[in-house]
Amino acid sequence: MMLRRAALIGCTITSGNLWSLLGFSAKVPTWPAVKVSSSTGNHANFTSIEEKLSCRKLAGYSIRYRAMSASANATPVNVIAENEEQVQEFKQLNAVNDRYGGVIVEMSEPMDPAAFASILRASIAQWRRQGKKGVWIKLPIQHVNLVEAAVKEGFWFHHAEPNYLMLAYWIPEGTHTLPANASHRVGVGAFVMNEKREVLVVQENTGRFRGTGVWKFPTGVVNEGEDLCTAVVREVKEETAIDTKFIEVLAFRQSHKSFFEKSDIFFMCLMEPLSFEIQKQESEIEAAQWMPFEEYAAQPFVQTNELSKYIVDICKAKEARKYSGFVPVPTSSPFSDEKNYMYFNYRDLNGQ
Amino acid sequence: MMLRRAALIGCTITSGNLWSLLGFSAKVPTWPAVKVSSSTGNHANFTSIEEKLSCRKLAGYSIRYRAMSASANATPVNVIAENEEQVQEFKQLNAVNDRYGGVIVEMSEPMDPAAFASILRASIAQWRRQGKKGVWIKLPIQHVNLVEAAVKEGFWFHHAEPNYLMLAYWIPEGTHTLPANASHRVGVGAFVMNEKREVLVVQENTGRFRGTGVWKFPTGVVNEGEDLCTAVVREVKEETAIDTKFIEVLAFRQSHKSFFEKSDIFFMCLMEPLSFEIQKQESEIEAAQWMPFEEYAAQPFVQTNELSKYIVDICKAKEARKYSGFVPVPTSSPFSDEKNYMYFNYRDLNGQ
Repeated sequence: MMLRRAALIGCTITSGNLWSLLGFSAKVPTWPAVKVSSSTGNHANFTSIEEKLSCRKLAGYSIRYRAMSASANATPVNVIAENEEQVQEFKQLNAVNDRYGGVIVEMSEPMDPAAFASILRASIAQWRRQGKKGVWIKLPIQHVNLVEAAVKEGFWFHHAEPNYLMLAYWIPEGTHTLPANASHRVGVGAFVMNEKREVLVVQENTGRFRGTGVWKFPTGVVNEGEDLCTAVVREVKEETAIDTKFIEVLAFRQSHKSFFEKSDIFFMCLMEPLSFEIQKQESEIEAAQWMPFEEYAAQPFVQTNELSKYIVDICKAKEARKYSGFVPVPTSSPFSDEKNYMYFNYRDLNGQ
Repeated sequence: MMLRRAALIGCTITSGNLWSLLGFSAKVPTWPAVKVSSSTGNHANFTSIEEKLSCRKLAGYSIRYRAMSASANATPVNVIAENEEQVQEFKQLNAVNDRYGGVIVEMSEPMDPAAFASILRASIAQWRRQGKKGVWIKLPIQHVNLVEAAVKEGFWFHHAEPNYLMLAYWIPEGTHTLPANASHRVGVGAFVMNEKREVLVVQENTGRFRGTGVWKFPTGVVNEGEDLCTAVVREVKEETAIDTKFIEVLAFRQSHKSFFEKSDIFFMCLMEPLSFEIQKQESEIEAAQWMPFEEYAAQPFVQTNELSKYIVDICKAKEARKYSGFVPVPTSSPFSDEKNYMYFNYRDLNGQ
């Protein structure tokens, strides 16, 4: 499917995206770290050498443009000199090329909506002549006055974060091939057992579990940009003050429509406790304790469905050293400082 | 951290969110399937029995409101009858309560921005008096004219999809505890080997690998709402026309800033081929073939980094039946029709 495949490309061999070197990449273009001003005379401020090399500035904000005529093949300078009265000045939004035949505009200066609509229309016409495909406009929230104008010109919402809205437009005929928005949230749960076979459990004081008396393993949400093996250590610490060491991913589950329309992936993680003194978080945790594992497992809500049985069984098998999960292995490369974790069955791979 | 923890709650025991029953849930409130009109007299059209039970309609669009006075304890009807001249009519946006002390407004009718600003201000004042916390406004793109007004009242962008923008606002003092937007994209790669020890590989005709001669495993992006074990079958089929059966997840990798600012998780999957006749996708695949595994592994780009070595080693170990990945197990429950896949080391768990 074109729409999906378009999201797979954009790996750069020179910039350290090494997973792509495996031929496994499902990556999409990183938003170029480029500031493009819409104000007169501001050129793109490239912040990345790579972008310097790969991005071609499309047009200045204010250029002198002359309708094509019999003298179209003349050099622009001659045309301007010979036919000054025919020369029109028109404005175009500063943009940088992306790697897929499209352009990216980042609005950094305020603008009147009517002026913006006009310049946007002219810009699209120009990009169309240049055979451009996708158009991205990143609108910081302080320029919210321009959203309506962009939508009236045919842009749609691509994604938003608290401080900006990304709008998209597709110039060619047919279905667009722009990559989809982020589709998943990632959660983590912590199985932490001490030497007395007690597991660390909490009761939440908000949400659906409030007042139910259900004891849960500590859980949390992985932040954008956060390694999941870091996230689960953080969450356990926040909820209970217990320090832990990440051991492995025991299992994971994917589910759908869990957050607005988004899907989620939840990783159940084995953690080794490094401290034992519980200090529960006041704001959202009603109670926290070390609870005998069998007592946790005996809770009706744990007993009444397939999923819970699997998890309890996995935890028991793990305890008996009969289960191998996925271990995080940091991977590095000569090309980049970027650190990524790969998770796999290390025991099996190393014949242990 | 409050901001994050707020995202963990919202599991409903009655609606089949069974993972939560394990006490593992990292779920957040599902956007209620509720249409709330902003036009006079329209009541909420609840589409979910659960919502019928759990949501309390806050206030009609047009209600008769009287400033509290000595007669505040009188019934509203009496007040209106006795003090007609004191009664003020004011409008308030229809909203439904969420489960966390906040309210949700879905704009379904057009409105003038100035009128919207005024009614929004009055609504916030009312919600403040009621002790409400977060306020969500879902604005379909056709009501884009209201975005600026909402932002001027203090709303920020929470997330956006092509056809709507979600705005958020926090009434109490202090940091908001609204859940974060989706943070990850999910990719899949397919290791497909036939009985001749040939692996299915492709060359892409767009993006960074274009023209490099690099042979990659087929890869793709998991759609929102799509099981990853389904996504990889679809992608292999789309790119090469080969039918495959999903066997297991061999490894996965999490990386950051791969798509705008989002993170991604890439699952490397073992697939069994069910057909062998390659028909490459015209639009994005330059070439596709069955290639001897050793030839694939010998490619310089595969040889030159840690990640690729791990994957090749895992594939070899798998071939020799010395490696156990995570198998998807469908889980069901008496509470719901929702089907989820849980992935774990089935071989170890079952002592095989």
